[in-house]
Amino acid sequence: MSAPLSPIPVAVLGATGAVGQTFIRLLQGHPWFRVAAVAASERSAGRPYREVTRWIEGPLPAEVANLVVAPCDPAQVRAPVVFSALDSAVAGEVEAAFAAAGRLVLSNAKNYRMDADVPLVIPEVNADHLALLETQRQRRGWRGGIVTNANCAATMAAMALAPLHAAFGLSRVVVTTLQAVSGAGYPGVPSLDILGNVIPYIGDEEPKIEREMNKMLGRFDGGAIVEAPFRVSAHANRVPTLNGHLACLSIECDRPVTPAEAHAVFASWKGHAAARGLPSSPAQALQVLDEADRPQTRRDVDAGRGMTVSVGRIRVDPLFHLKLVALGHNTIRGAAGGSILNAEVLVAQGAVPAA
Amino acid sequence: MSAPLSPIPVAVLGATGAVGQTFIRLLQGHPWFRVAAVAASERSAGRPYREVTRWIEGPLPAEVANLVVAPCDPAQVRAPVVFSALDSAVAGEVEAAFAAAGRLVLSNAKNYRMDADVPLVIPEVNADHLALLETQRQRRGWRGGIVTNANCAATMAAMALAPLHAAFGLSRVVVTTLQAVSGAGYPGVPSLDILGNVIPYIGDEEPKIEREMNKMLGRFDGGAIVEAPFRVSAHANRVPTLNGHLACLSIECDRPVTPAEAHAVFASWKGHAAARGLPSSPAQALQVLDEADRPQTRRDVDAGRGMTVSVGRIRVDPLFHLKLVALGHNTIRGAAGGSILNAEVLVAQGAVPAA
Amino acid sequence: MSAPLSPIPVAVLGATGAVGQTFIRLLQGHPWFRVAAVAASERSAGRPYREVTRWIEGPLPAEVANLVVAPCDPAQVRAPVVFSALDSAVAGEVEAAFAAAGRLVLSNAKNYRMDADVPLVIPEVNADHLALLETQRQRRGWRGGIVTNANCAATMAAMALAPLHAAFGLSRVVVTTLQAVSGAGYPGVPSLDILGNVIPYIGDEEPKIEREMNKMLGRFDGGAIVEAPFRVSAHANRVPTLNGHLACLSIECDRPVTPAEAHAVFASWKGHAAARGLPSSPAQALQVLDEADRPQTRRDVDAGRGMTVSVGRIRVDPLFHLKLVALGHNTIRGAAGGSILNAEVLVAQGAVPAA
Amino acid sequence: MSAPLSPIPVAVLGATGAVGQTFIRLLQGHPWFRVAAVAASERSAGRPYREVTRWIEGPLPAEVANLVVAPCDPAQVRAPVVFSALDSAVAGEVEAAFAAAGRLVLSNAKNYRMDADVPLVIPEVNADHLALLETQRQRRGWRGGIVTNANCAATMAAMALAPLHAAFGLSRVVVTTLQAVSGAGYPGVPSLDILGNVIPYIGDEEPKIEREMNKMLGRFDGGAIVEAPFRVSAHANRVPTLNGHLACLSIECDRPVTPAEAHAVFASWKGHAAARGLPSSPAQALQVLDEADRPQTRRDVDAGRGMTVSVGRIRVDPLFHLKLVALGHNTIRGAAGGSILNAEVLVAQGAVPAA
Repeated sequence: MSAPLSPIPVAVLGATGAVGQTFIRLLQGHPWFRVAAVAASERSAGRPYREVTRWIEGPLPAEVANLVVAPCDPAQVRAPVVFSALDSAVAGEVEAAFAAAGRLVLSNAKNYRMDADVPLVIPEVNADHLALLETQRQRRGWRGGIVTNANCAATMAAMALAPLHAAFGLSRVVVTTLQAVSGAGYPGVPSLDILGNVIPYIGDEEPKIEREMNKMLGRFDGGAIVEAPFRVSAHANRVPTLNGHLACLSIECDRPVTPAEAHAVFASWKGHAAARGLPSSPAQALQVLDEADRPQTRRDVDAGRGMTVSVGRIRVDPLFHLKLVALGHNTIRGAAGGSILNAEVLVAQGAVPAA
Repeated sequence: MSAPLSPIPVAVLGATGAVGQTFIRLLQGHPWFRVAAVAASERSAGRPYREVTRWIEGPLPAEVANLVVAPCDPAQVRAPVVFSALDSAVAGEVEAAFAAAGRLVLSNAKNYRMDADVPLVIPEVNADHLALLETQRQRRGWRGGIVTNANCAATMAAMALAPLHAAFGLSRVVVTTLQAVSGAGYPGVPSLDILGNVIPYIGDEEPKIEREMNKMLGRFDGGAIVEAPFRVSAHANRVPTLNGHLACLSIECDRPVTPAEAHAVFASWKGHAAARGLPSSPAQALQVLDEADRPQTRRDVDAGRGMTVSVGRIRVDPLFHLKLVALGHNTIRGAAGGSILNAEVLVAQGAVPAA
Repeated sequence: MSAPLSPIPVAVLGATGAVGQTFIRLLQGHPWFRVAAVAASERSAGRPYREVTRWIEGPLPAEVANLVVAPCDPAQVRAPVVFSALDSAVAGEVEAAFAAAGRLVLSNAKNYRMDADVPLVIPEVNADHLALLETQRQRRGWRGGIVTNANCAATMAAMALAPLHAAFGLSRVVVTTLQAVSGAGYPGVPSLDILGNVIPYIGDEEPKIEREMNKMLGRFDGGAIVEAPFRVSAHANRVPTLNGHLACLSIECDRPVTPAEAHAVFASWKGHAAARGLPSSPAQALQVLDEADRPQTRRDVDAGRGMTVSVGRIRVDPLFHLKLVALGHNTIRGAAGGSILNAEVLVAQGAVPAA
Repeated sequence: MSAPLSPIPVAVLGATGAVGQTFIRLLQGHPWFRVAAVAASERSAGRPYREVTRWIEGPLPAEVANLVVAPCDPAQVRAPVVFSALDSAVAGEVEAAFAAAGRLVLSNAKNYRMDADVPLVIPEVNADHLALLETQRQRRGWRGGIVTNANCAATMAAMALAPLHAAFGLSRVVVTTLQAVSGAGYPGVPSLDILGNVIPYIGDEEPKIEREMNKMLGRFDGGAIVEAPFRVSAHANRVPTLNGHLACLSIECDRPVTPAEAHAVFASWKGHAAARGLPSSPAQALQVLDEADRPQTRRDVDAGRGMTVSVGRIRVDPLFHLKLVALGHNTIRGAAGGSILNAEVLVAQGAVPAA
């Protein structure tokens, strides 16, 4: 691993939205990266960031406040590393333009996630999939590239399932999520819709959960991903919590597994070596809580500064093998923090193009 | 069916607690029943109801306010019909004493639910199980009897599953619940524990959900219940909602079933004839909502004055056959209202002992 | 008073928004009025109401669902009585056009509230101000007219203060409001802003509270309103409640007043005779609650189907004379319900132009 | 100022409750203090702390988990400094016993707050009142002493008012609070009471707010406190927030004051020198926020790790001179953190008895 000699300039695309703001918040004081550019829609371009942004949480970082917002055009955004918080309606075209222009794009959008030559990565789970970038460049003729991270709810489930899949092989999973309002961005969910309510529907969420984990837990065979063959049934619910997606999982493995076996696997799991010791790496990517009523959304969401996924209530499932609960921070581990960790892995591997 | 000629005196045991209060609220102005006695622990006995009760919701009914609280002793509680909101720590002994003394006890406690000779009844689902009372009286030598209703979360799931089981036969069900704080009584869940939080654990709830439905959806063979042989895996969560238990269900039937088939079955389901047309019967025991994001806890909990269970989001399950959402009012349909409807069925059948 | 011989056709302007929907909900089954037309912006005009409306609460009334939305043009909206839920950005021009065209406009917008010739009315408080319509017609040359109701928070405070002003004369009032999210319409307050939060600011709310009460509690001298000369200091807060604006009041009168005197005045207050016995009149316009911790927003907001204002905690103020708490339903008493009651008074007085 | 050479052993009385837990959390890793003893009721005494405590927030500090709980008896609690989180029902007797036994008692209970010889202190506001300890010892014959901190809501208001009182003299204040549920301890406010609700009543809170500020903002004349003569009217409300008491203030000074003057006074206020540079001192005791909608409870409560009080919305009051909003963390600045800062001041002044 090699830390960069001087901070690498990075850009945030879609910088004025909720995910864009989280990128900027997490990149504040980052030892390797420096926010050199912020880009957003034409409507905001040309004006100072602080003027066009309804800043949501904490103080607006001073080093970004006066940056003039650029349009989402690689010719006007100078930075080798680009974090994309763009809406899927525009991400497809814009991200491709940046990749073609030699930039490394770390994307939260869904557009390229399931493309065969695009890595969909949680570093502790499948950092080796980053090697797909080579295939991607060859196939698309790009000098840069696109690396995606998964849907926020799929991320929490995938991290809880990865150690089990590695140890026992998964065959079937039923996952029911209880997701926080911050997952919908800002202004996002109207308070009239969610105060004292549960909305058992989140548009387009269940298909993502049912598809993305197979790719992430798949095997990289040197040139392509061989998807993991387990099947997933997902139920997605919006609940009146601020941050933190909680998932209740019923899990069937290729052979019977006891809670004690699963517990041991979780306790010893460290994830990919490539993901350890980086600026955004938590002390533990996964922690197991033994109290009967944990993890809880509000009480455990900030573990590892939002980068640790908590697992608990590991118990026998009367139908399958295991029941358990997983929880993680949706806008940190499940979005901006995950992207930044992906970038850190690439930097440490020397994969970032010179500025 | 025969309505009583004059109001039947009823008693509420455990009248000062949250469920007891709901009984009293629902019985206010009831055309068949009149609250003639309220009973509670020795600590409250001998004092006016209004003085010993921290009344939670709405105005305290005038006809009950000045009743002197009796101890939970059949000799001091004159009423042929007794609604029990007792805690399970005392319900076992007290309810047996009332049944032995010739009273018909409608119980919310878990103590007798799974006893082979005790009916566990949602009238629309299995009113025919009430015939078990005959077996119960013979076996126990009681002149009265005990009829129980199910755990509140099991009730919502059972109502959604009953039509499917009747039509297609169930084999496996994964149910994840999102339950309101009123399910824990009063004072119940501390606000510090649940504001902006999810607690993925409710003591002793999952085993009830995993057992009680098999009995309710079982078949009465003339002398005993033959339990339905499907298996259930339950995940119970507490969420910051006031009233309404929502359940996400993954359902496997004995043969493949499409959402359209399920929808048709729900739409035409009327439940047991014995449960229709009674004072507490809703116009529809089950309603199907077709909007993509319904039922929602706060918006649909009061359907049918809390007696209608709402079903929605009927869709294909990638593992099993069906996914759907069910919602009902936990303290009405899932507790006091369900007990009262049970009593109404028995009255209509002439099964209530003379006062 | 005279009830109309047949239902009067009414229109709702701004029918697709939150207040517009409340009008439609409250007018459903109204004995005197029939929703004959719904009007909204050009964007929605020409399409069925159900298609252009994101209906928020309860079932969409069948009689309105298929009405074709009209533009806000009196030539295309046939109804002698028009309820306006328009945004203030457009209300000024549109309401004037309807009034000029002979319609009676009942407006929730702020535009005309403080105009000297426009009645600002809570019927129980100042139904006599409706006589200003005569002045208005003469001065403006309108055949119809505009009647406004007050800001929702000002309404609750004004109803609590009206009996005291009549009995003792007010000199100074400090009012701090705790207002529900429904006051901001839909989508209104983002959940990320208000879950577990207090926002001590509501744009343009405090000036309204500090001005409108003086007009409403003023005296109609036959041709104009002589404003009540007391002074008001207002603090407006948004809190995470659904419905109900609660106001904490410190009150100085022209002479010392005891809580007992105030209580007696409230208990005997009936408000203007013109406002009694109408379809939307509650049994009590004002109720006094004697429990130490009432009124409470969630528990008392629906009193009188949302038309009763609750007053409680009447106690000595160490600086002024009285402290008390007032609570009312902001979208019913404070908006649509108040407008409808205004219209009912006018109908009963024979003031509605023939259809 | 002198930092202690080695950590001073401290005890927490009432250690198992919510405030006691906050003491332990804040003392974890404290550079000057080491939790050497935890004491609670006889029921808990003799058992390890972790066994008798329902720990509410974050991980239970390891150094305390296995301490054996002592009874609240100075003979069995060895520590020169004692933080009291006792309930007022027992605090009177117990705190006196510890003071008599030579301990310095920092108390959150109300019992001694208004005693003429007991300092009621917010260090930045009135650290000089600590000299009252001398009077107290002489009068009561104690070798130790009792120092109290104020009611949590009074604390926020007092910090906002102190600079204004020093600069302009206060004459009248109306304060309306919106208080978080953590102010009621644990289990505290039932969720059924507060979800989606406002309770405009907190037992015994308003009299404290109306009395304690006069003492804190009073003048120490060398032997006694001369109370500040302004008068206060308080309205206390419970709202569904977790932490943070927000106060809306209408303020009359001895002479007209403009918002700009007040702003300047706040911006330059540093508070008592004795309170600066201590381990628990925030960078700013008071911060002024200039956004129109700040401070907000959830967004600003943690400023200065809960020790900074935020002031905002400084504007003209139509009745008095100023309106403004103040916010602070009720369990940190308003309780345990305030006590610890009091102790730090005393240690720095050499006022702590040798262990």
